[in-house]
Amino acid sequence: MEDQLIVLDYWSSSYAMRVRIALEEKGIKYESKEQNLMEKSPLLVEMNPVHKMIPVLIHNGKPICESLVIVQYIDEVWNNTSPLLPSDPYGRSRARFWADFIDEKVYSNGKKLWREKGEKQKETKREFIEALRTLENELGEKPYFSGERIGFVDVALVPITCWFLSFQICGNFSIEEECPKISAWTKRCMQRESVSKTLPDPQKIYGFVLQLKEKLGID
Amino acid sequence: MEDQLIVLDYWSSSYAMRVRIALEEKGIKYESKEQNLMEKSPLLVEMNPVHKMIPVLIHNGKPICESLVIVQYIDEVWNNTSPLLPSDPYGRSRARFWADFIDEKVYSNGKKLWREKGEKQKETKREFIEALRTLENELGEKPYFSGERIGFVDVALVPITCWFLSFQICGNFSIEEECPKISAWTKRCMQRESVSKTLPDPQKIYGFVLQLKEKLGID
Repeated sequence: MEDQLIVLDYWSSSYAMRVRIALEEKGIKYESKEQNLMEKSPLLVEMNPVHKMIPVLIHNGKPICESLVIVQYIDEVWNNTSPLLPSDPYGRSRARFWADFIDEKVYSNGKKLWREKGEKQKETKREFIEALRTLENELGEKPYFSGERIGFVDVALVPITCWFLSFQICGNFSIEEECPKISAWTKRCMQRESVSKTLPDPQKIYGFVLQLKEKLGID
Repeated sequence: MEDQLIVLDYWSSSYAMRVRIALEEKGIKYESKEQNLMEKSPLLVEMNPVHKMIPVLIHNGKPICESLVIVQYIDEVWNNTSPLLPSDPYGRSRARFWADFIDEKVYSNGKKLWREKGEKQKETKREFIEALRTLENELGEKPYFSGERIGFVDVALVPITCWFLSFQICGNFSIEEECPKISAWTKRCMQRESVSKTLPDPQKIYGFVLQLKEKLGID
Protein backbone atom coordinates (compact mmCIF):
# COMPACT_ATOMS: atom_id res chain seq x y z
CA MET A 1 0.00 0.00 0.00
CA GLU A 2 1.28 3.45 -0.83
CA ASP A 3 1.79 5.89 2.03
CA GLN A 4 -0.79 8.62 2.30
CA LEU A 5 0.73 11.95 3.28
CA ILE A 6 -1.13 15.18 3.93
CA VAL A 7 0.42 18.45 5.04
CA LEU A 8 -1.86 20.88 6.88
CA ASP A 9 -0.25 23.91 5.39
CA TYR A 10 -0.13 27.69 5.02
CA TRP A 11 1.66 29.34 2.12
CA SER A 12 3.59 32.01 4.06
CA SER A 13 4.56 29.87 7.06
CA SER A 14 8.28 29.18 7.14
CA TYR A 15 7.59 26.35 9.59
CA ALA A 16 5.34 24.65 7.02
CA MET A 17 7.95 25.21 4.29
CA ARG A 18 10.46 23.17 6.31
CA VAL A 19 8.14 20.16 6.04
CA ARG A 20 7.58 20.60 2.31
CA ILE A 21 11.32 21.01 1.60
CA ALA A 22 12.11 17.82 3.55
CA LEU A 23 9.45 15.88 1.62
CA GLU A 24 10.68 17.32 -1.71
CA GLU A 25 14.30 16.44 -0.89
CA LYS A 26 13.22 12.86 -0.26
CA GLY A 27 11.07 12.80 -3.39
CA ILE A 28 7.96 11.87 -1.41
CA LYS A 29 4.51 12.62 -2.82
CA TYR A 30 2.14 14.48 -0.54
CA GLU A 31 -1.02 16.51 -0.61
CA SER A 32 -0.91 20.06 0.75
CA LYS A 33 -4.12 21.25 2.42
CA GLU A 34 -4.06 25.02 2.80
CA GLN A 35 -5.65 26.02 6.11
CA ASN A 36 -7.70 29.03 7.10
CA LEU A 37 -5.89 30.24 10.21
CA MET A 38 -8.61 32.70 11.16
CA GLU A 39 -11.20 29.95 11.31
CA LYS A 40 -9.50 26.68 12.12
CA SER A 41 -10.81 23.57 10.41
CA PRO A 42 -12.16 20.62 12.42
CA LEU A 43 -9.39 18.56 10.80
CA LEU A 44 -6.64 20.87 12.14
CA VAL A 45 -8.20 20.91 15.63
CA GLU A 46 -8.52 17.12 15.57
CA MET A 47 -4.97 16.54 14.33
CA ASN A 48 -3.25 19.10 16.58
CA PRO A 49 -5.56 19.51 19.59
CA VAL A 50 -2.77 20.85 21.81
CA HIS A 51 -1.52 23.79 19.71
CA LYS A 52 -4.13 23.89 16.89
CA MET A 53 -1.33 25.14 14.66
CA ILE A 54 0.11 24.26 11.29
CA PRO A 55 2.15 22.52 10.05
CA VAL A 56 0.85 19.05 10.75
CA LEU A 57 2.00 16.04 8.75
CA ILE A 58 -0.65 13.33 8.59
CA HIS A 59 0.98 10.01 7.71
CA ASN A 60 -1.55 7.25 7.02
CA GLY A 61 -3.99 9.03 9.34
CA LYS A 62 -1.50 9.65 12.17
CA PRO A 63 -0.60 13.27 12.96
CA ILE A 64 2.90 14.59 13.63
CA CYS A 65 3.14 18.19 14.89
CA GLU A 66 5.88 20.83 15.29
CA SER A 67 8.04 21.51 12.25
CA LEU A 68 11.42 20.31 13.55
CA VAL A 69 9.83 17.18 15.02
CA ILE A 70 8.18 16.53 11.65
CA VAL A 71 11.43 16.96 9.68
CA GLN A 72 13.19 14.50 12.01
CA TYR A 73 10.28 12.08 11.61
CA ILE A 74 10.48 12.30 7.81
CA ASP A 75 14.22 11.73 7.97
CA GLU A 76 13.84 8.70 10.23
CA VAL A 77 11.02 7.04 8.25
CA TRP A 78 12.56 7.63 4.80
CA ASN A 79 16.16 7.17 5.85
CA ASN A 80 17.38 5.57 2.62
CA THR A 81 17.23 8.68 0.45
CA SER A 82 18.83 12.09 1.05
CA PRO A 83 19.61 11.82 4.77
CA LEU A 84 19.14 15.17 6.50
CA LEU A 85 20.60 14.38 9.92
CA PRO A 86 24.15 13.00 10.30
CA SER A 87 24.47 9.30 11.04
CA ASP A 88 26.56 9.77 14.21
CA PRO A 89 25.06 10.88 17.55
CA TYR A 90 27.49 13.78 17.97
CA GLY A 91 26.71 15.17 14.51
CA ARG A 92 22.99 14.80 15.23
CA SER A 93 23.36 16.65 18.54
CA ARG A 94 25.11 19.53 16.73
CA ALA A 95 22.37 19.69 14.07
CA ARG A 96 19.63 19.73 16.72
CA PHE A 97 21.48 22.40 18.68
CA TRP A 98 21.66 24.71 15.66
CA ALA A 99 18.05 24.06 14.63
CA ASP A 100 16.93 25.08 18.14
CA PHE A 101 19.17 28.16 17.92
CA ILE A 102 17.50 29.11 14.63
CA ASP A 103 14.03 28.83 16.21
CA GLU A 104 15.01 30.81 19.30
CA LYS A 105 17.11 33.54 17.77
CA VAL A 106 16.27 33.88 14.08
CA TYR A 107 12.57 32.96 13.74
CA SER A 108 11.46 34.57 17.00
CA ASN A 109 13.32 37.84 16.38
CA GLY A 110 12.18 37.81 12.74
CA LYS A 111 8.55 37.61 13.85
CA LYS A 112 9.06 40.68 16.04
CA LEU A 113 11.11 42.69 13.52
CA TRP A 114 8.23 43.77 11.27
CA ARG A 115 5.84 44.50 14.14
CA GLU A 116 8.07 46.66 16.31
CA LYS A 117 9.28 50.26 16.09
CA GLY A 118 11.92 52.55 17.59
CA GLU A 119 14.30 51.33 20.27
CA LYS A 120 12.60 47.97 20.66
CA GLN A 121 13.01 47.23 16.96
CA LYS A 122 16.65 48.34 17.07
CA GLU A 123 17.37 45.84 19.84
CA THR A 124 15.56 43.05 17.97
CA LYS A 125 17.48 43.91 14.79
CA ARG A 126 20.77 43.81 16.71
CA GLU A 127 19.92 40.34 18.09
CA PHE A 128 18.71 39.11 14.70
CA ILE A 129 21.92 40.18 12.93
CA GLU A 130 24.05 38.78 15.74
CA ALA A 131 22.28 35.42 15.37
CA LEU A 132 22.87 35.38 11.59
CA ARG A 133 26.55 36.19 12.17
CA THR A 134 26.83 33.33 14.64
CA LEU A 135 25.36 31.10 11.94
CA GLU A 136 27.81 32.50 9.35
CA ASN A 137 30.62 31.55 11.66
CA GLU A 138 29.22 28.02 11.96
CA LEU A 139 28.75 27.77 8.17
CA GLY A 140 32.34 28.87 7.51
CA GLU A 141 33.48 27.95 4.02
CA LYS A 142 31.18 24.95 3.68
CA PRO A 143 28.48 25.06 0.95
CA TYR A 144 25.83 23.84 3.44
CA PHE A 145 25.72 23.72 7.22
CA SER A 146 26.13 19.96 7.13
CA GLY A 147 28.94 20.07 4.57
CA GLU A 148 28.61 19.12 0.92
CA ARG A 149 24.93 18.15 1.10
CA ILE A 150 21.83 19.98 2.26
CA GLY A 151 20.89 18.91 5.80
CA PHE A 152 18.68 19.48 8.82
CA VAL A 153 20.10 22.92 9.72
CA ASP A 154 19.75 24.17 6.13
CA VAL A 155 16.14 22.95 6.00
CA ALA A 156 15.48 24.65 9.34
CA LEU A 157 16.93 28.00 8.28
CA VAL A 158 16.25 28.50 4.57
CA PRO A 159 12.44 29.02 4.73
CA ILE A 160 12.80 32.22 6.75
CA THR A 161 14.92 33.80 3.98
CA CYS A 162 11.81 34.58 1.88
CA TRP A 163 10.86 36.95 4.73
CA PHE A 164 14.26 38.72 4.65
CA LEU A 165 13.09 41.37 2.16
CA SER A 166 10.26 42.32 4.53
CA PHE A 167 12.58 42.35 7.56
CA GLN A 168 15.03 44.59 5.72
CA ILE A 169 12.40 47.11 4.60
CA CYS A 170 10.67 47.19 8.01
CA GLY A 171 13.96 47.32 9.92
CA ASN A 172 15.91 49.47 7.46
CA PHE A 173 19.02 47.34 7.03
CA SER A 174 20.70 45.10 4.48
CA ILE A 175 21.28 41.42 5.23
CA GLU A 176 23.48 41.18 2.11
CA GLU A 177 25.77 43.80 3.64
CA GLU A 178 25.61 42.55 7.22
CA CYS A 179 25.87 38.82 6.46
CA PRO A 180 27.30 38.21 2.97
CA LYS A 181 27.93 34.51 3.60
CA ILE A 182 24.31 33.88 4.61
CA SER A 183 23.23 35.71 1.43
CA ALA A 184 25.49 33.53 -0.72
CA TRP A 185 24.22 30.43 1.08
CA THR A 186 20.60 31.50 0.49
CA LYS A 187 21.27 31.79 -3.26
CA ARG A 188 22.95 28.37 -3.23
CA CYS A 189 19.93 26.81 -1.52
CA MET A 190 17.57 28.53 -3.98
CA GLN A 191 19.27 26.63 -6.81
CA ARG A 192 17.73 23.46 -5.42
CA GLU A 193 14.29 22.70 -6.79
CA SER A 194 13.07 21.55 -3.35
CA VAL A 195 13.70 25.07 -2.06
CA SER A 196 12.84 27.24 -5.09
CA LYS A 197 9.47 25.56 -5.63
CA THR A 198 8.60 25.82 -1.92
CA LEU A 199 9.55 29.39 -1.04
CA PRO A 200 7.10 32.09 -2.16
CA ASP A 201 8.29 35.28 -3.85
CA PRO A 202 9.66 37.70 -1.19
CA GLN A 203 7.61 40.47 -2.82
CA LYS A 204 4.45 38.46 -2.21
CA ILE A 205 5.49 38.01 1.44
CA TYR A 206 6.05 41.78 1.69
CA GLY A 207 2.55 42.42 0.33
CA PHE A 208 1.25 40.03 2.99
CA VAL A 209 3.24 41.84 5.73
CA LEU A 210 1.72 45.18 4.62
CA GLN A 211 -1.76 43.64 4.87
CA LEU A 212 -1.02 42.25 8.32
CA LYS A 213 0.35 45.61 9.49
CA GLU A 214 -2.82 47.34 8.33
CA LYS A 215 -4.98 44.74 10.04
CA LEU A 216 -3.01 45.08 13.29
CA GLY A 217 -3.00 48.89 13.07
CA ILE A 218 0.82 49.18 12.80
CA ASP A 219 1.91 52.05 10.56
CA MET B 1 39.61 3.43 27.11
CA GLU B 2 36.89 4.48 29.51
CA ASP B 3 34.65 7.38 28.48
CA GLN B 4 35.32 10.63 30.28
CA LEU B 5 32.10 12.49 31.11
CA ILE B 6 31.83 15.89 32.74
CA VAL B 7 28.61 17.78 33.41
CA LEU B 8 28.88 21.56 33.73
CA ASP B 9 26.21 21.79 36.34
CA TYR B 10 24.18 23.91 38.74
CA TRP B 11 22.36 22.38 41.69
CA SER B 12 19.00 24.15 41.28
CA SER B 13 18.78 23.97 37.47
CA SER B 14 16.04 21.60 36.33
CA TYR B 15 17.66 21.55 32.90
CA ALA B 16 20.89 20.22 34.42
CA MET B 17 18.93 17.66 36.47
CA ARG B 18 17.58 16.17 33.22
CA VAL B 19 21.12 15.34 32.18
CA ARG B 20 22.04 13.80 35.53
CA ILE B 21 18.85 11.69 35.65
CA ALA B 22 19.53 10.35 32.13
CA LEU B 23 23.11 9.44 33.09
CA GLU B 24 21.94 7.81 36.33
CA GLU B 25 19.25 5.81 34.52
CA LYS B 26 21.92 4.46 32.19
CA GLY B 27 24.30 3.81 35.07
CA ILE B 28 27.01 5.97 33.52
CA LYS B 29 29.74 7.46 35.71
CA TYR B 30 30.31 11.19 35.36
CA GLU B 31 31.86 14.11 37.14
CA SER B 32 29.65 17.07 38.01
CA LYS B 33 31.39 20.47 37.94
CA GLU B 34 29.27 23.04 39.75
CA GLN B 35 29.45 26.38 37.93
CA ASN B 36 29.38 29.93 39.20
CA LEU B 37 26.66 31.49 37.04
CA MET B 38 27.45 35.04 38.14
CA GLU B 39 31.02 34.74 36.96
CA LYS B 40 31.19 32.22 34.17
CA SER B 41 34.24 29.98 34.04
CA PRO B 42 36.54 29.98 31.00
CA LEU B 43 35.63 26.28 30.62
CA LEU B 44 31.88 27.05 30.34
CA VAL B 45 32.51 29.87 27.83
CA GLU B 46 34.79 27.60 25.81
CA MET B 47 32.39 24.64 25.83
CA ASN B 48 29.19 26.62 25.14
CA PRO B 49 30.35 29.82 23.39
CA VAL B 50 26.91 30.45 21.85
CA HIS B 51 24.71 30.45 24.98
CA LYS B 52 27.34 30.31 27.76
CA MET B 53 24.77 28.37 29.75
CA ILE B 54 24.64 25.15 31.72
CA PRO B 55 24.09 22.25 31.36
CA VAL B 56 26.89 21.15 29.09
CA LEU B 57 27.90 17.51 28.78
CA ILE B 58 31.55 17.10 27.86
CA HIS B 59 32.11 13.64 26.40
CA ASN B 60 35.79 12.83 25.88
CA GLY B 61 36.46 16.54 25.43
CA LYS B 62 33.54 17.24 23.06
CA PRO B 63 30.75 19.50 24.32
CA ILE B 64 27.02 18.87 23.87
CA CYS B 65 24.68 21.72 24.84
CA GLU B 66 20.95 22.18 25.53
CA SER B 67 19.35 19.75 27.96
CA LEU B 68 16.95 17.93 25.61
CA VAL B 69 19.66 17.62 22.96
CA ILE B 70 21.99 16.18 25.60
CA VAL B 71 19.43 13.62 26.83
CA GLN B 72 18.84 12.44 23.25
CA TYR B 73 22.61 12.23 22.73
CA ILE B 74 23.02 10.12 25.88
CA ASP B 75 20.19 7.86 24.75
CA GLU B 76 21.69 7.40 21.29
CA VAL B 77 25.27 6.75 22.46
CA TRP B 78 24.32 4.36 25.30
CA ASN B 79 21.38 2.75 23.53
CA ASN B 80 21.81 -0.72 25.00
CA THR B 81 20.68 0.10 28.52
CA SER B 82 17.44 1.75 29.69
CA PRO B 83 16.28 3.26 26.39
CA LEU B 84 14.56 6.61 26.98
CA LEU B 85 13.13 7.26 23.52
CA PRO B 86 10.87 4.73 21.79
CA SER B 87 12.41 2.62 19.04
CA ASP B 88 9.86 3.60 16.37
CA PRO B 89 9.90 6.98 14.58
CA TYR B 90 6.27 7.78 15.44
CA GLY B 91 6.80 7.14 19.13
CA ARG B 92 9.95 9.26 19.03
CA SER B 93 8.07 12.11 17.35
CA ARG B 94 5.43 12.01 20.12
CA ALA B 95 8.10 12.04 22.84
CA ARG B 96 9.88 15.02 21.22
CA PHE B 97 6.58 16.84 20.83
CA TRP B 98 5.77 16.51 24.52
CA ALA B 99 9.28 17.42 25.65
CA ASP B 100 9.03 20.64 23.60
CA PHE B 101 5.59 21.28 25.09
CA ILE B 102 7.07 20.91 28.59
CA ASP B 103 9.80 23.46 27.79
CA GLU B 104 7.38 25.94 26.25
CA LYS B 105 4.45 25.71 28.64
CA VAL B 106 5.67 24.29 31.95
CA TYR B 107 9.28 25.46 32.37
CA SER B 108 8.75 28.91 30.86
CA ASN B 109 5.60 29.65 32.87
CA GLY B 110 7.21 28.18 35.98
CA LYS B 111 10.14 30.59 35.64
CA LYS B 112 7.68 33.51 35.52
CA LEU B 113 5.40 32.30 38.31
CA TRP B 114 7.61 33.24 41.25
CA ARG B 115 8.67 36.58 39.78
CA GLU B 116 5.28 37.99 38.85
CA LYS B 117 2.43 39.51 40.84
CA GLY B 118 -1.24 40.39 40.45
CA GLU B 119 -3.06 39.88 37.15
CA LYS B 120 0.06 38.87 35.25
CA GLN B 121 0.78 36.11 37.75
CA LYS B 122 -2.85 34.94 37.62
CA GLU B 123 -2.63 34.54 33.86
CA THR B 124 0.70 32.67 34.12
CA LYS B 125 -0.77 30.42 36.82
CA ARG B 126 -3.78 29.67 34.61
CA GLU B 127 -1.51 28.70 31.70
CA PHE B 128 0.77 26.66 33.96
CA ILE B 129 -2.13 24.64 35.41
CA GLU B 130 -3.68 24.19 31.96
CA ALA B 131 -0.37 22.80 30.69
CA LEU B 132 -0.15 20.34 33.60
CA ARG B 133 -3.74 19.24 32.92
CA THR B 134 -2.91 18.67 29.27
CA LEU B 135 -0.02 16.50 30.46
CA GLU B 136 -2.31 14.63 32.88
CA ASN B 137 -4.56 13.85 29.97
CA GLU B 138 -1.59 12.52 27.99
CA LEU B 139 -0.36 10.48 30.99
CA GLY B 140 -3.80 8.89 31.46
CA GLU B 141 -3.63 5.73 33.57
CA LYS B 142 -0.06 4.87 32.57
CA PRO B 143 2.60 4.81 35.31
CA TYR B 144 5.00 6.84 33.12
CA PHE B 145 4.45 8.96 30.01
CA SER B 146 6.12 6.31 27.88
CA GLY B 147 4.19 3.45 29.50
CA GLU B 148 5.63 0.96 31.96
CA ARG B 149 9.16 2.38 31.96
CA ILE B 150 10.57 5.85 32.60
CA GLY B 151 11.27 7.67 29.32
CA PHE B 152 12.24 10.91 27.62
CA VAL B 153 9.07 12.83 28.59
CA ASP B 154 9.36 11.79 32.24
CA VAL B 155 13.03 12.84 32.33
CA ALA B 156 12.07 16.16 30.71
CA LEU B 157 9.28 16.93 33.20
CA VAL B 158 10.27 15.51 36.59
CA PRO B 159 13.12 17.94 37.44
CA ILE B 160 10.76 20.93 37.56
CA THR B 161 8.68 19.24 40.27
CA CYS B 162 11.23 20.19 42.96
CA TRP B 163 10.23 23.81 42.19
CA PHE B 164 6.50 23.09 42.64
CA LEU B 165 6.52 23.98 46.35
CA SER B 166 7.91 27.43 45.50
CA PHE B 167 5.43 27.93 42.65
CA GLN B 168 2.55 27.01 44.95
CA ILE B 169 3.61 29.37 47.74
CA CYS B 170 4.36 32.27 45.37
CA GLY B 171 1.22 31.68 43.28
CA ASN B 172 -1.06 30.63 46.15
CA PHE B 173 -2.45 27.39 44.71
CA SER B 174 -2.19 23.63 45.22
CA ILE B 175 -0.86 21.41 42.44
CA GLU B 176 -1.98 18.33 44.40
CA GLU B 177 -5.57 19.64 44.22
CA GLU B 178 -5.41 20.96 40.65
CA CYS B 179 -3.52 18.04 39.13
CA PRO B 180 -3.74 14.93 41.34
CA LYS B 181 -2.41 12.60 38.62
CA ILE B 182 0.73 14.68 38.13
CA SER B 183 1.23 14.63 41.91
CA ALA B 184 0.92 10.84 41.99
CA TRP B 185 3.27 10.54 39.00
CA THR B 186 5.81 12.80 40.77
CA LYS B 187 5.79 10.52 43.82
CA ARG B 188 6.20 7.49 41.55
CA CYS B 189 9.22 9.06 39.86
CA MET B 190 10.72 10.00 43.23
CA GLN B 191 10.83 6.30 44.14
CA ARG B 192 13.53 5.90 41.50
CA GLU B 193 17.03 6.43 42.79
CA SER B 194 18.01 8.32 39.61
CA VAL B 195 15.40 10.94 40.45
CA SER B 196 15.52 11.05 44.25
CA LYS B 197 19.31 11.46 44.37
CA THR B 198 19.21 14.20 41.69
CA LEU B 199 16.36 16.46 42.81
CA PRO B 200 17.18 18.81 45.69
CA ASP B 201 14.81 19.26 48.64
CA PRO B 202 11.91 21.57 47.60
CA GLN B 203 12.45 23.52 50.85
CA LYS B 204 16.02 24.24 49.79
CA ILE B 205 14.73 25.46 46.41
CA TYR B 206 12.23 27.70 48.23
CA GLY B 207 15.03 29.20 50.32
CA PHE B 208 16.89 29.88 47.07
CA VAL B 209 13.78 31.51 45.54
CA LEU B 210 13.49 33.81 48.57
CA GLN B 211 17.14 34.81 48.16
CA LEU B 212 16.62 35.48 44.44
CA LYS B 213 13.49 37.55 45.14
CA GLU B 214 15.41 39.66 47.64
CA LYS B 215 18.28 40.12 45.20
CA LEU B 216 15.88 41.13 42.41
CA GLY B 217 13.88 43.41 44.71
CA ILE B 218 10.61 41.44 44.42
CA ASP B 219 8.62 41.43 47.64
